[in-house]
Amino acid sequence: MTNSATNLRLKLPMACIILEVIIIILFGTLVQYDNETDAKHWHKEIANGTSNYDNDFYYRYPSFQDVHVMIFIGFGFLMTFLQRYGFSSVGFNFLIAAFALQWATLMQGFVHGMHGGKIHVGIESMINADFCTGSVLISFGAVLGKTSPVQLLVMSVIEVTLFAINEFIVLSVLGAKDAGGSMTIHTFGAYFGLMVARVLYRPNLDKSKHKNCSVYHSDLFAMIGTIYLWMFWPSFNSAVTAHGDDQHRTAMNTYYSLAACTLATYGLSAVVAHDGKLDMVHIQNAALAGGVAVGTAGEMMLTPFGSMIVGFLAGTISVLGFKFLSPILEEKLKIQDTCGVHNLHGMPGVLGAIVGAVTAALATKDVYGDGMADVFPDIQSGDVEASFQGVRQAISLAVTLGIALLGGLITGFILKLPIYGAPPDTICFEDGIYWELPGEEGSHEELTTVRTPDEAENLNA
Amino acid sequence: MTNSATNLRLKLPMACIILEVIIIILFGTLVQYDNETDAKHWHKEIANGTSNYDNDFYYRYPSFQDVHVMIFIGFGFLMTFLQRYGFSSVGFNFLIAAFALQWATLMQGFVHGMHGGKIHVGIESMINADFCTGSVLISFGAVLGKTSPVQLLVMSVIEVTLFAINEFIVLSVLGAKDAGGSMTIHTFGAYFGLMVARVLYRPNLDKSKHKNCSVYHSDLFAMIGTIYLWMFWPSFNSAVTAHGDDQHRTAMNTYYSLAACTLATYGLSAVVAHDGKLDMVHIQNAALAGGVAVGTAGEMMLTPFGSMIVGFLAGTISVLGFKFLSPILEEKLKIQDTCGVHNLHGMPGVLGAIVGAVTAALATKDVYGDGMADVFPDIQSGDVEASFQGVRQAISLAVTLGIALLGGLITGFILKLPIYGAPPDTICFEDGIYWELPGEEGSHEELTTVRTPDEAENLNA
Amino acid sequence: MTNSATNLRLKLPMACIILEVIIIILFGTLVQYDNETDAKHWHKEIANGTSNYDNDFYYRYPSFQDVHVMIFIGFGFLMTFLQRYGFSSVGFNFLIAAFALQWATLMQGFVHGMHGGKIHVGIESMINADFCTGSVLISFGAVLGKTSPVQLLVMSVIEVTLFAINEFIVLSVLGAKDAGGSMTIHTFGAYFGLMVARVLYRPNLDKSKHKNCSVYHSDLFAMIGTIYLWMFWPSFNSAVTAHGDDQHRTAMNTYYSLAACTLATYGLSAVVAHDGKLDMVHIQNAALAGGVAVGTAGEMMLTPFGSMIVGFLAGTISVLGFKFLSPILEEKLKIQDTCGVHNLHGMPGVLGAIVGAVTAALATKDVYGDGMADVFPDIQSGDVEASFQGVRQAISLAVTLGIALLGGLITGFILKLPIYGAPPDTICFEDGIYWELPGEEGSHEELTTVRTPDEAENLNA
Repeated sequence: MTNSATNLRLKLPMACIILEVIIIILFGTLVQYDNETDAKHWHKEIANGTSNYDNDFYYRYPSFQDVHVMIFIGFGFLMTFLQRYGFSSVGFNFLIAAFALQWATLMQGFVHGMHGGKIHVGIESMINADFCTGSVLISFGAVLGKTSPVQLLVMSVIEVTLFAINEFIVLSVLGAKDAGGSMTIHTFGAYFGLMVARVLYRPNLDKSKHKNCSVYHSDLFAMIGTIYLWMFWPSFNSAVTAHGDDQHRTAMNTYYSLAACTLATYGLSAVVAHDGKLDMVHIQNAALAGGVAVGTAGEMMLTPFGSMIVGFLAGTISVLGFKFLSPILEEKLKIQDTCGVHNLHGMPGVLGAIVGAVTAALATKDVYGDGMADVFPDIQSGDVEASFQGVRQAISLAVTLGIALLGGLITGFILKLPIYGAPPDTICFEDGIYWELPGEEGSHEELTTVRTPDEAENLNA
Repeated sequence: MTNSATNLRLKLPMACIILEVIIIILFGTLVQYDNETDAKHWHKEIANGTSNYDNDFYYRYPSFQDVHVMIFIGFGFLMTFLQRYGFSSVGFNFLIAAFALQWATLMQGFVHGMHGGKIHVGIESMINADFCTGSVLISFGAVLGKTSPVQLLVMSVIEVTLFAINEFIVLSVLGAKDAGGSMTIHTFGAYFGLMVARVLYRPNLDKSKHKNCSVYHSDLFAMIGTIYLWMFWPSFNSAVTAHGDDQHRTAMNTYYSLAACTLATYGLSAVVAHDGKLDMVHIQNAALAGGVAVGTAGEMMLTPFGSMIVGFLAGTISVLGFKFLSPILEEKLKIQDTCGVHNLHGMPGVLGAIVGAVTAALATKDVYGDGMADVFPDIQSGDVEASFQGVRQAISLAVTLGIALLGGLITGFILKLPIYGAPPDTICFEDGIYWELPGEEGSHEELTTVRTPDEAENLNA
Repeated sequence: MTNSATNLRLKLPMACIILEVIIIILFGTLVQYDNETDAKHWHKEIANGTSNYDNDFYYRYPSFQDVHVMIFIGFGFLMTFLQRYGFSSVGFNFLIAAFALQWATLMQGFVHGMHGGKIHVGIESMINADFCTGSVLISFGAVLGKTSPVQLLVMSVIEVTLFAINEFIVLSVLGAKDAGGSMTIHTFGAYFGLMVARVLYRPNLDKSKHKNCSVYHSDLFAMIGTIYLWMFWPSFNSAVTAHGDDQHRTAMNTYYSLAACTLATYGLSAVVAHDGKLDMVHIQNAALAGGVAVGTAGEMMLTPFGSMIVGFLAGTISVLGFKFLSPILEEKLKIQDTCGVHNLHGMPGVLGAIVGAVTAALATKDVYGDGMADVFPDIQSGDVEASFQGVRQAISLAVTLGIALLGGLITGFILKLPIYGAPPDTICFEDGIYWELPGEEGSHEELTTVRTPDEAENLNA
C-alpha cells in the first residue's frame, strides 16, 4: 500500500465540510430553541409566575458538564494507552464526538417527536446528544488504531442514526427504562463496534503488534481518562432521570457500585495477572464496569447493598473477560477488540440490562410509594404489572442486541470499501500516518531534551 | 549574558511579596463581603422571606468552577506544548493568575462602583476577576518562553488595570453587551499581548529555535488544556449572563459554535498541512475559536444555526491564520507570537465583536419578547434603537483595540528595561533558567528509567 | 528478600475480597436510603408541599463532585511526581479511596447516630465519606513508595475508624466547628501518617534514594494534581457548611487564602531554593497550604483580608518547612515523610486550628447577626460565650493530635508485621514490584518510540 492511499488531503476535508454544511442547513431549517432557551417563550412563563431559578439549566447543566468531561476527556484519554496513538486517540475522539453530538441532535429530534415540524433544543437534548456520542465512542474503542478518521465519520453517521431508532423503540415503543443506558448506550455501542471490528478483521495485524501496547507514560495518560469516567459516572447515570429523589438516588447507587467494582477489580487482577502483579489494562477498564452495570437499575430502588453486589459482579466478569475471553474472541471469532470494549461495555451492559429487568419485575408500591410515578409511570397508572415491566426490559435488551449486531454488520461492509484511506496492516496503531509528528521534519536533536554543554554551563554557572 | 542576570533570588521574592502585601493592605482597607456572603446582611434578607436556596452561590458557582478550570488547567496546560517549557507554562500561568485575580478584584471594584467607599465581593466578583485573568493569560501566550516571571507580574499589574478601565468604558459608558468577552477579554488580551511581543521583538530568537517546538508527550499535555477549554467554554460565556433563558441559551449557542468549529478545523488542517496530515497546532488552538467568536452574541437570539455558522467561520480563519498569517506577522511585522494568540483570540475576537454588533442591530421585540429586558435593557426601555445598539457594539470594538494596542505599546517599553531577569536569546523556551530541574544536581542516571540488572532480577525473578 | 515476599497473588485478592464482602454484608444489614433518596419518603414530602427542586442533591452535589475530583485526581496525581511510582500513586490512591469511602460510610454512620438501627445515606454522607478518605490519603503521602497495597488497606481500616471517633468527639462532644477539616482531616491525617512513617522507619532507605525523586514529565503529571486541588479547595471547605451565606462565604474565603498563599510560595521558593530558581516541590505542595489553613475558620466571618493573611502565612511556613524542617524530621526524628505531608497538611492544619480558635473567640453578634445560628449555634442560643467556643476549638486540636499520634503509633506496629508483602529497602519507590510494567516481557524496542527506517519511509514518502 502506497502512502497516497492514506493521504487524506481531499478525503478528510470533504467529509468534514460536507457533513458540517449538511448539518448547518438542517439546523437552519429544523431546529428551534425550546421554551427554556427562547427569550420570548421563557419570559411568557416568567409573566405567568415561573421563577428564573426554575429554569432546567440549573438542575441539569452541572450533570451535563460532567457527562461532557466523560465524553471528551474520559473516553479520549482512556484510549491514549497505546504508545504511539495518543494524538489519534484524543484527536479522533474529539472530531467524531464534535460531529456526533450535532448529528445526534438531529436524529434524536426526528425520532423522538417534533414540535410543529421543528426540533426543540435545550439542556436535555444536549445531554441526550452527548449520550448518543458516548455510544459511538465505545464502538471507536473496538476499532481503535485500525481506522481512518474518514471511516470513523462514516461510522458515526450510521451509528448515530441507528442509535436514535433503537433508543426510540426501547424507550418509547417498548416503554423500557434505561436512564444510564446499560442497553441503549453500552450494549448497543459495544456490539455494534464488535461487529464492525469483525467485518474489518485484519489477518495480518500482528505486523503492527509491537505498537499495539502501552509505554509507561501512555498508561498514566490513560489513567486520566479512567479516573474521570469513574468519578463522573454518577452524573452520567443520573443526568436525565426525574428530578428530586430519582437523580439523587441514581447518583448514589452508581457511586456505591463503582466503589465495590474497584475492589473486585484489584482483587481479581492480582489473581489472574502474571506473578500476582496488577495489570493496568484491568484497572483502566474493569474498574469502570460497575458504572455500566447500574445504568438501567440505578434509578430504581436497587439499594446501596444491591448496587454493590452488581458492581462487584461487573468488576469480576470484566477482569475475567480481559484474561480469558478476549483471546478467544480474537482467535476463534476473529474479533480484534483493541480496547476490550466487550469486557467494559458489552458484558457489563448485558448484566445491567438483566439487573434492570429483575429489579423492575420486583417493584412494589410498598417500596416506591408515589415515587413509582417517576420510575415506572405505567405501573403507577396501572397499565402494566411490575412483572410485565421486567419482560419489556428483557425484550429491549434483545432488540438492542439485534439492531446493534445487524447495524454493525452493514456498517462494517460499508467501511470495508477501499476509499477511506485506512492504514495498512503494517502501520496500524501509529499516529504518523494521519498526523504531522513533532520533530518529523527537523533534526533528531529536536526530539531530545538533552542540553548542549554550552547551555548546561549557562544554566549551572 | 551572565547567569546573574537571570537569577531571581531577590527580584521574584520582592515582586511577589511586595505585591501581595499591597493587595492585603488594600483588601483590609477597602473590601467587604457583599450581601450574599455577609452573615448579618444575608440573614436580614432571610428574615424578610428570602430562602437560603436563592443565594446566588447556587446559580453561579458551578459556572465559576468551570471558568476556574479553564484559567488554571485550560490555559496552563494548553501552553505546555513546548518541549522544555512545561514547568514555566503551568507554573507561571499559576503565579500570574493567582496574582491577577486578586488585583482584578480591586481594579474592577474601583472602576465598577464602590458601595459606601467599599468594594463588595461575592461570586460575581470572583467570576469577573477570573475573566480579567483570562485576558492576561492570553497576552502571556504571545510572549511565552521569552519573559521572566517578574516581567509577567509587571505586565499583569498594568494589563489588569487597563482591562478594568476598558471594560468599564465598553459595558458601562458605551452600554455594549459582551457577556463572554469577545471584545473585552479576547480582543483586548490578544492585541495587548501582540503589541508587547512587538516591542520585545528579539531579532536573534532563532538561536532558541530548536526549543520552540513540541515533543510527543508535550503535545498530549497540551491537549488536556485544549479539551478543558473546549468543554467548559459554554460555562465561560454564560457565567455572568442574566439568570433563566439567558444563561441556558448562551451555554447552548457556545456548545454548537464549538462543535461546528471543530469540524471546520479538522477539515482545513488536512487541507493546508503537509501531505494531508493533521497539524496538532491547529487542533489545539483553532478548534477553540468558535468559543471566542460567540463571546458577544452568545447571549443573544443567535440561534443554533447562526452559532454554527459563526463557529465554522472562526475555525476556518483560525487555521488559515496559523498557516498563512503567522509567518507574515513574524517576518514583516516583527511580532513573534509564540502561541499564535492572534489566530485563536485576535481574529476570532474581532469576528465575535462584529457578529455581536450585527446580531444586536437585528434584535426585534418580536423575537425577544419581554426577554429583551435581559439582553438589551436600553432597547426594551426605548432609550435606543436596535441599530444604534449595533453601533455601540462596533464603537466598543474600536475602543478596545485602541486601548489594547496603546496599552501594550507602553507596557512593552516598560518590560524592555533590563532589570527583570529576562532570558537571553540563546536560552528562551527553557525551563532550566528559572526552575530547578529534576536530576540537575544528581547523577545522570536519575533522569533515566532504565533498571539496573540487579533490580530487573529482583523484579522478574 | 526474595520476590515471593512481595508477591501479592493471594494477599491482595484476599484483602480486597474479604473487605468488600464484609462491607456488602454490613450495608445489606444496616444501610438505608435517607429521606431525600428514598422514593416513598421523598414523595411523602412532595405530597406535603416540598418541591423536587428543594432536594439537597441540587445544593450539595456540585460540591461533592469537586471534592471527588480532589480525592481521586488531586491526591492521585499529586503523588505521581516520583519517576517510577506513577502507577502506584494513582492506582493505590484509587484502591484505598474506593475502599475508604465505603468503610467511612459505615464508621461515620455508626458514630454519628443511627436512625432506628439504620444508617441513612445521601449526598451528605457521600461528602463526609470522601472527607474521611482524604485523611487516609494524606497519611498515604507520608508512607508513599514504602508500603504494599495490603498494608495500605489495613491502615485504611484502622484510620477510618479512628477518624470517625475523633470527628465525633470534636464536632459532637466538644461542639467545635471544623467544616473544612483543618483539624479532623488535615491535622489528623498528617500526624497519623507521620507516626506510621516513624514506626516504619527504614534505616537503609538510601538504597532506593536514586528513585525517590522526579523526572521532567512526572512533575508535570503531579501539577495536574496540584492544580485540581487548588481550584476545587473552595468547594471542599464549603461542601458541608450551612446553606446560603455560609457556603458562599466559605468558598470565597478559601479562594482568597489560596491566591495569597500562591504568591507567598513563589516568593519564598525563589529565596530558599538553589540559585534563585523555583523548586517544583514547593509549588506542587506549599501553594495548597492556604486551603488547609482556612479549613476551620473559612466559614466564619474571617473576611477576605483575614483569609489572605492566613494563606500568606501558610505558604510561608510550608516552604520553610520543606527547606529546613523536613531534613531535621528525617535525620533527627527518623520520620521519612515522602510527600512532605507535615509541610502541607501538618503545620498548616495546626495553623488552621489556631486561626479557627481565635476567630471563634472573637465572634460577636454585631458581626454575625442572626447568621450566628448557622456558624455558632451554641453562642446564638446563649449556651456558651464566644471565648469558650475558642477554648473548645483549642481542646479539639489537642484531642485530634493525641488520637492521631496514638493511633498512628499502634497502626505502625501492626503494619510492621512481615506479612503484607512490603517492598525491601532496595526497591522502594518502584512500580515494578506490584505492577506488570509495559514492555517488561517483550523486547526492549517496545519501550522506545523510535521508528524503524521502513516505517519512516512509509510515513514520509
